[in-house]
Amino acid sequence: MSFLTSLFGRKTSAPIARDRLQILLAHERAGEGQSELIAKLQEEILEVIKRHISVDQDKVQIKMDRGAGVSMLEIDIEVPEAKPAAKTA
Amino acid sequence: MSFLTSLFGRKTSAPIARDRLQILLAHERAGEGQSELIAKLQEEILEVIKRHISVDQDKVQIKMDRGAGVSMLEIDIEVPEAKPAAKTA
Repeated sequence: MSFLTSLFGRKTSAPIARDRLQILLAHERAGEGQSELIAKLQEEILEVIKRHISVDQDKVQIKMDRGAGVSMLEIDIEVPEAKPAAKTA
Repeated sequence: MSFLTSLFGRKTSAPIARDRLQILLAHERAGEGQSELIAKLQEEILEVIKRHISVDQDKVQIKMDRGAGVSMLEIDIEVPEAKPAAKTA
């Protein structure tokens, strides 16, 4: 997936080394219908992510681009600290 | 977001016009730690999607690529029929 590597790597020049989580969604429609899907998924996917990592709302960037045939959503999260769900059972 | 357009547009040559939903996740880690995050998110994000559209399991392609510094996940779903949640209230 080198095309992805280059895509995701393009912003890596940040001075502070932090974990980062990026999510890109694209809904490509064969017909002309409007897509509300991306907008619906945005919130729920963020909820899913927040279950697993601590997310500072200030560190979340969301871009949405709704075109006639394709809707796209980009979520960029700066992870303050990697917090894997501790298995202490 | 033209870079996304070109990225997502690259497979559009399928003979049958269908709706398609693509999700790309990348977890970029500043440290050397392993990332289980992507693997965790995969299933839950699919669950979120299935709440909104009918997904044929055969039409879901998942690629995961776990590197030392970045883990990536690509989910590609062919949507059999756009089924927005009908608001019949």
